[in-house]
Amino acid sequence: MTYLVNDPKEFAADAVRGMVAAFGDHVAPVHGGIVRATTSPDGQVSVVVGGGSGHYPAFPGWVGPGMAHGAVCGNVFASPSASQVESVVRAADNGGGTLLLFGNYAGDCLHFGEAASSLGADGLDVRVVTISDDVASNTPDHHGDRRGIAGDLLVVKVAGAAAEAGLRIDDVERVARRAGGLTRSLGVAFTGCTLPGADEPLFTVPAGQFALGLGIHGEPGISLHPMATAADIASLLVDRVLAEEPDRTEDGYRGRVAVLVNGLGATKYEELFVLFGSVAELLERRGLTIVHPVVGEQVTSLDMAGASLSVMFLDDELERLWLAPADTPAFKTGSVDVRERRHVRTDEVAGSIVPGSPESSDQARRALGLIEVLADVATRAEADLGRLDSVAGDGDHGQGMVLGATAAVRAAQDAVRAGAGMRTLFRTAGAAWSEGAGGTSGALWGAALRALGQTLSDAESADEERIGEAVVTAAWTFEEVGGAKPGDKTMVDATRPFAEVFDAHLRDGSTLACAWGEAAEAATSAAQRTAEIPARKGRARTHGDASLGHPDPGAVSFALLMTGVAQALGR
Amino acid sequence: MTYLVNDPKEFAADAVRGMVAAFGDHVAPVHGGIVRATTSPDGQVSVVVGGGSGHYPAFPGWVGPGMAHGAVCGNVFASPSASQVESVVRAADNGGGTLLLFGNYAGDCLHFGEAASSLGADGLDVRVVTISDDVASNTPDHHGDRRGIAGDLLVVKVAGAAAEAGLRIDDVERVARRAGGLTRSLGVAFTGCTLPGADEPLFTVPAGQFALGLGIHGEPGISLHPMATAADIASLLVDRVLAEEPDRTEDGYRGRVAVLVNGLGATKYEELFVLFGSVAELLERRGLTIVHPVVGEQVTSLDMAGASLSVMFLDDELERLWLAPADTPAFKTGSVDVRERRHVRTDEVAGSIVPGSPESSDQARRALGLIEVLADVATRAEADLGRLDSVAGDGDHGQGMVLGATAAVRAAQDAVRAGAGMRTLFRTAGAAWSEGAGGTSGALWGAALRALGQTLSDAESADEERIGEAVVTAAWTFEEVGGAKPGDKTMVDATRPFAEVFDAHLRDGSTLACAWGEAAEAATSAAQRTAEIPARKGRARTHGDASLGHPDPGAVSFALLMTGVAQALGR
Repeated sequence: MTYLVNDPKEFAADAVRGMVAAFGDHVAPVHGGIVRATTSPDGQVSVVVGGGSGHYPAFPGWVGPGMAHGAVCGNVFASPSASQVESVVRAADNGGGTLLLFGNYAGDCLHFGEAASSLGADGLDVRVVTISDDVASNTPDHHGDRRGIAGDLLVVKVAGAAAEAGLRIDDVERVARRAGGLTRSLGVAFTGCTLPGADEPLFTVPAGQFALGLGIHGEPGISLHPMATAADIASLLVDRVLAEEPDRTEDGYRGRVAVLVNGLGATKYEELFVLFGSVAELLERRGLTIVHPVVGEQVTSLDMAGASLSVMFLDDELERLWLAPADTPAFKTGSVDVRERRHVRTDEVAGSIVPGSPESSDQARRALGLIEVLADVATRAEADLGRLDSVAGDGDHGQGMVLGATAAVRAAQDAVRAGAGMRTLFRTAGAAWSEGAGGTSGALWGAALRALGQTLSDAESADEERIGEAVVTAAWTFEEVGGAKPGDKTMVDATRPFAEVFDAHLRDGSTLACAWGEAAEAATSAAQRTAEIPARKGRARTHGDASLGHPDPGAVSFALLMTGVAQALGR
Repeated sequence: MTYLVNDPKEFAADAVRGMVAAFGDHVAPVHGGIVRATTSPDGQVSVVVGGGSGHYPAFPGWVGPGMAHGAVCGNVFASPSASQVESVVRAADNGGGTLLLFGNYAGDCLHFGEAASSLGADGLDVRVVTISDDVASNTPDHHGDRRGIAGDLLVVKVAGAAAEAGLRIDDVERVARRAGGLTRSLGVAFTGCTLPGADEPLFTVPAGQFALGLGIHGEPGISLHPMATAADIASLLVDRVLAEEPDRTEDGYRGRVAVLVNGLGATKYEELFVLFGSVAELLERRGLTIVHPVVGEQVTSLDMAGASLSVMFLDDELERLWLAPADTPAFKTGSVDVRERRHVRTDEVAGSIVPGSPESSDQARRALGLIEVLADVATRAEADLGRLDSVAGDGDHGQGMVLGATAAVRAAQDAVRAGAGMRTLFRTAGAAWSEGAGGTSGALWGAALRALGQTLSDAESADEERIGEAVVTAAWTFEEVGGAKPGDKTMVDATRPFAEVFDAHLRDGSTLACAWGEAAEAATSAAQRTAEIPARKGRARTHGDASLGHPDPGAVSFALLMTGVAQALGR
């Protein structure tokens, strides 16, 4: 259970605030997360990590000399938004480029990737490396598609040390990729964990059993086993992790390993030491040399009971970086020189509004009404969408749509007051939607609005043709950024027909209002037809095809919102 | 639950072994616990901490430059024995005297105190300071009688820094007492914790409530309250802890405080940060300045859910010491110079056997038979004693007696084989009993056997008169060391009549065998009469007078063992 809570919705933000109050010597708050409170040399590569909250020390506890330069902090178990990522990257920048380093999860990949393109468009050199150490989540030949779990610590430590050593961005990226390629983890769970404000754990493990192959977001393991001794569990973990040991004569690896025995939350230090005692014995028996082991809590999952073993197979360069000094709130090793404090603007945000031309800002004022329509429709549909989502998902789709759309309206209103043009209006609204909603659908709506803005201009007003092109581009964004295909039972089943019908009608000379009406109808029929598709792939394992007979909530909400806009345009 | 276990009986020892494997750069194992793996300057005062296991990082996680020099590690939630304390003190000694620093619990006071006298008799300067920070466990005017909980960290940090700064033993003791006198803690519990191998937690907190005034050994709080927000809990803790704030113009205190928000085990970092956010706000609102706060797990209680607030009111000296660098497995601050490694004999024990005179070792050989009688009687009575103890205690009295007596027999056999005289025989057997049994009754039996040895000699054989005196001295030890009085329903209700009757018969000219027989009979009657006494004071709150009608198990076992010896002497 999570007990020490004020408002469950504010839990993650409250935790970051308290963390900054506790470690004010090390870190400073910025919009979207935290950065080092001390100076870094000019031109040093900046390593920015992040992900959902609920994993402390991962990720904010690793910010400091020798490790990360900034951490983006999402909601509990939820990816931060692209605009949060952008804000932290800008605040942590030393002019040497940025490595974005995070666990391989769909939401994180979307938001960090989106931020990287947007920052890249502004001329920053931003690289993306994902960590995928969990051997339970995919086969060895798909190592890069695995989930990131406790091995995050090993890769972040090494990448941070590479930046601290003065390596250029190409080399920091290379080191991070190599470290990730040589890191393997596997864990066991004894209980699930409970989200702040919830009464029930996300899953339970039957008494007298343990789950192998846990995730760190309350995902149950991949198989259940009768409870065993610590020594037997150690042996199981060592066997599976070392099954992927590289050849000891190959490529600089000579049987030296960094080792982390990580506690998930409620499995305590004495237990971790008992486990590590057996692990150390087994590794030594295989002729391996353990270099500076870490035994403790580095990547937690709220109050989940369980533990994992992570191993990084070391070459000389990785070993030197693994052993380099670091001084962060939760990971300290060796001796780090005292750093000067720097001034961090704690209210730093992605950018401020630059007024557009009178024509473009007039048009933006009228376009604001359409964004308000999206929020109205989402609000009216919230309960229905929630019920629909609870069949195959976690029931928060309606809430996410309302949070995203109302955040977009607020940001758009502020932008219009500041005289924004069309480009700025939609870019600002998109960033706010993504940040307000969180989750994958929030990321996609945000990306689509931003793409809409990107295609327009702040300098001149857009004619019907230009707007039409922008809408088509935006509609295709859902598919391009999300990576789903029609037939996967996602919102793409509705966005693709919308884009195609809209485009076709414009080409035939229809008015915008007319084309929108036809496209919205096509999206609505397509959304209803998703009821005939079984549960989508990613969810199939846990939910079976409970959703068969129910349309996809993301497709439905898209169709509803497009219909709302069509009605507004038709008036 | 505690899940990662091999043999529950070996859990604490396995954990220490794993901890040493994980932190071999910092600590080295010795009999009874661990010491620093690095050198300390000659003549530096050594700070030795310790207590039961299950509280990591307390106490072994605090061993290293700037903090403790050694930690004595008992079983889970059980005091280490006097001989374990002695072993760690000897291995950690730098020639500047030793400060023994530990939480104020009966078992720890007994064993550490016993070790201090024994080491003192060998010419070492050993001082004892207990930590008693828990405001829930006694009134402000009995601050020194309170329990030690998470405030342990603050006092140990400051005392260790005083030793590191080169202060002499008088000043290190003075600083530790002052720090303890200025430290206050209070905690809340949301769940109990489960001992390794047990299926049920030591206590439970009803759903929707929290317990105020927790202990760190699975003791429930002193009162239950309806569940509240983190901010409300912060306010409750701050109010009670600051109720004992000293006058801000007085004695060097000017409103500057060291603060620890400590997690008990299953209450995770994000929750602690949420709590600390409110605590910091409340303290600042009262005009206090927080100096280097610590938010994390420093004194745990296995997997208990809960948290506590500790505050140390600082003067200039305490603040300087609180901020001084430290480099231990679990508490690192500032920059510590790299220390040279030293050679630690990992098998170091209290002492080896020096052979006695032929006369004394002949007598020891015969006396061994009587120690074997004690073990035989205890083994036969084990089940009965266990049942008796389960009425008012935790049912382990029979097991403790068997563990203690058989350990004493083994040590005595080894000593006899090595040619020990009477003094060494009983001192060795006493140390082994105390260490093998653990707990309060083990400490008392150990102390009595050691007192017996102390009164005898390795040089000459003892006559009946000398033996008689030694037995009387030993019999009074139970009362002197334990501090209980007749009528408290403890073993003292049987040891006092034994001592008095034995002494009286010897004075009247009885033989040893005869006097022993009479004294054992008196002890037996007295033990039976304890059935008429209600539950003893210390247990009254939790157990009521469930034990009324049942004799005290400690008194009964004493009478049984004395009767066994009387029969052996009479043969």
